[in-house]
Amino acid sequence: MKLIHGGVTAPKGFTASGIYAGIKKKRKDIALIYSSTPAIGAGTFTTNIVKAAPVLWDIKLTKESGNIQAIVINSGVANACTGEEGDKNNLLMAESVANELHLPIDAVYTASTGVIGKQLPIDIIRESIPMLVKELDDKALAGTLAAESIMTTDTYSKECALTFNIDGKEITIGGMAKGSGMIHPNMATLIGVITTDISISKELLQEALSEDVKHSFNMISVDRDTSTNDSLLVLANGMAGNKAITKKDDDYYAFCKALNTVTSILSKMIAADGEGATKLLEVTVKGSDCWEEAVILSKSIITSNLVKTAVFGNDANWGRILCAMGYSGVDFDPYKVDLIIESENGSLQLVKNGMATDYSEEFATKILSAKEVKAIADLNKGSAIATAWGCDFSYDYVKINADYRS
Amino acid sequence: MKLIHGGVTAPKGFTASGIYAGIKKKRKDIALIYSSTPAIGAGTFTTNIVKAAPVLWDIKLTKESGNIQAIVINSGVANACTGEEGDKNNLLMAESVANELHLPIDAVYTASTGVIGKQLPIDIIRESIPMLVKELDDKALAGTLAAESIMTTDTYSKECALTFNIDGKEITIGGMAKGSGMIHPNMATLIGVITTDISISKELLQEALSEDVKHSFNMISVDRDTSTNDSLLVLANGMAGNKAITKKDDDYYAFCKALNTVTSILSKMIAADGEGATKLLEVTVKGSDCWEEAVILSKSIITSNLVKTAVFGNDANWGRILCAMGYSGVDFDPYKVDLIIESENGSLQLVKNGMATDYSEEFATKILSAKEVKAIADLNKGSAIATAWGCDFSYDYVKINADYRS
Repeated sequence: MKLIHGGVTAPKGFTASGIYAGIKKKRKDIALIYSSTPAIGAGTFTTNIVKAAPVLWDIKLTKESGNIQAIVINSGVANACTGEEGDKNNLLMAESVANELHLPIDAVYTASTGVIGKQLPIDIIRESIPMLVKELDDKALAGTLAAESIMTTDTYSKECALTFNIDGKEITIGGMAKGSGMIHPNMATLIGVITTDISISKELLQEALSEDVKHSFNMISVDRDTSTNDSLLVLANGMAGNKAITKKDDDYYAFCKALNTVTSILSKMIAADGEGATKLLEVTVKGSDCWEEAVILSKSIITSNLVKTAVFGNDANWGRILCAMGYSGVDFDPYKVDLIIESENGSLQLVKNGMATDYSEEFATKILSAKEVKAIADLNKGSAIATAWGCDFSYDYVKINADYRS
Repeated sequence: MKLIHGGVTAPKGFTASGIYAGIKKKRKDIALIYSSTPAIGAGTFTTNIVKAAPVLWDIKLTKESGNIQAIVINSGVANACTGEEGDKNNLLMAESVANELHLPIDAVYTASTGVIGKQLPIDIIRESIPMLVKELDDKALAGTLAAESIMTTDTYSKECALTFNIDGKEITIGGMAKGSGMIHPNMATLIGVITTDISISKELLQEALSEDVKHSFNMISVDRDTSTNDSLLVLANGMAGNKAITKKDDDYYAFCKALNTVTSILSKMIAADGEGATKLLEVTVKGSDCWEEAVILSKSIITSNLVKTAVFGNDANWGRILCAMGYSGVDFDPYKVDLIIESENGSLQLVKNGMATDYSEEFATKILSAKEVKAIADLNKGSAIATAWGCDFSYDYVKINADYRS
């Protein structure tokens, strides 16, 4: 497996574009991803009961069609809580792309991100589609333009790509995502797109994705708010020429591993770029009886406002970590817990058997002042382990969200 | 029922004191409440698996003794995650008070609040007890001194008192509490003390309290972090001279109603004085099928960082309210939801059938800029209703918690 330069245009047969349509005030706001041949489509979506119009459309397509050739994504307006008019506008967006690319409408996934409750400026969007199609390109830059066009409060675009081999055939996976706020995915992050030229059955592609998000996108949290628009979409167009994967053999697991590398990189990028974040926080809970409990504990720590503000202040206030574990609902013995913090500046055991070690506050502060900080809690009970990613909580989160709409 | 001046010293037979022992840098840090006759004790406590030493002690006393005459409370150090030494120090604190007041040790409740993981400075505490006992007084001012001595990041002390009549006897209830941060009670807020001169059986006192917190202290949240130290304690010394309440008759329900008035006032005071809060947010969910669902929905809204930051910014970003309802886990039809905001500045319907009304953003901002803001969400489904209290989320929450220990 080899990480390579690029994003969604890295696999064979994929092109992308991203332009300014006029939905947002200044920045690029609409993106298109296109596969030159029909691709298998799979997706995971928000579990929020309030689902945006494009989410409902993509869920329907994933169930009924599964032959997807294009994904159109706008930023600025989320098309959520918009009723029948929202559904109609979503169809018009898909239809414009379908017409321009000579595709059936059910070959076009849609996604929207931005303010909830506003209608899409559909005329502006429809007018932009011919230009969006004209700009499609297979260069890495085109993937970057697409990734930039789906940003809202993200401070940088998020892409990655890698290659690996199956049967002597080189397979490529590319991905892009956006995150920042309202990030506590319960299926997938706000918008994520994975492209690959692997040949794989629809069922296994969906299963690989659904399994994967449990360990990647569903393990990040910026603010514990599960969005109305979370969508992770994957297209596999088979152009790598490998023998199609139709059962859970070594090839399938090789794909799963490569997929997880891409989704983990994107997940960490989203966590590190959480609204107002100054650093990435990685929390590992080990020594647990079962994986599910380790997940609950690690997410309880990563989502605690008190833990997040302490990390922002470089304050090794470990009591807040034990407190967050304690209210998670998981049963464990607090007086068996060990806690270690780590970063490029060093490693330090803060807690042994649930109580403070004789550690140096100064050294703890030095460790916490890095851009990437790890906390490892050991329950000393079983052998299960889980890792969650989040970020610290700064003044800027409040600033960004106190006047997001103005 | 009549609200009166005062707090825990208002009922007959209760005295209190609060002094500076030296646990904190400058401010008063130890309080004592004393009943001149043995009182029935009842309590509700944190559900956090990590329980502070005084919480474990009080749970034991409530179960085994129930004849309580004193409550000693220190601030500055929480005596949580402190192991055997913590348990020993807690006993020494109770013992010092018991000796000075000539009581058995199991007549003394204890409570601690402050930093987790530090040992109590037990010598300083023991030295302060004679003075603390000497200062006991039945004046309202003595109750206020006690209420001030248990504050941590609270910006004002929280007390109230009321009288009502049973059988021509005047019954008094007084209360004090502290809150501010790590406030998402799951039994009771960090520290709350209720005193009353009513005569009531131990079983009914406990039941009245346990029922009450479901509608009062357990309905507030500052930061979704359930503390290790939550304790709500009540002492009933019977000095009002009413015929003892031993069954669920009209007298019992009159007491429950009066108790709820005291606990609701204290709960709202805690929510309004949440760390960094600039306003009180009251969220009512009505039209629900059952009370439990209305509770989940109202608490999901009140705890959303995105809702809280929008309220801080006076931004009527109602999509975040619907979003928080949507991920709560409760099943409802988003397109039946109505949403109204209210304050002393007016009332405005933002959402009708899940979509924006044609409301004035300017008027919405005016409503939200008050010190007390209400949001009412109607599911238009059933007849159950629940109300939760919280606060907005400001820069100061981050400031306070980024360097709490320094």
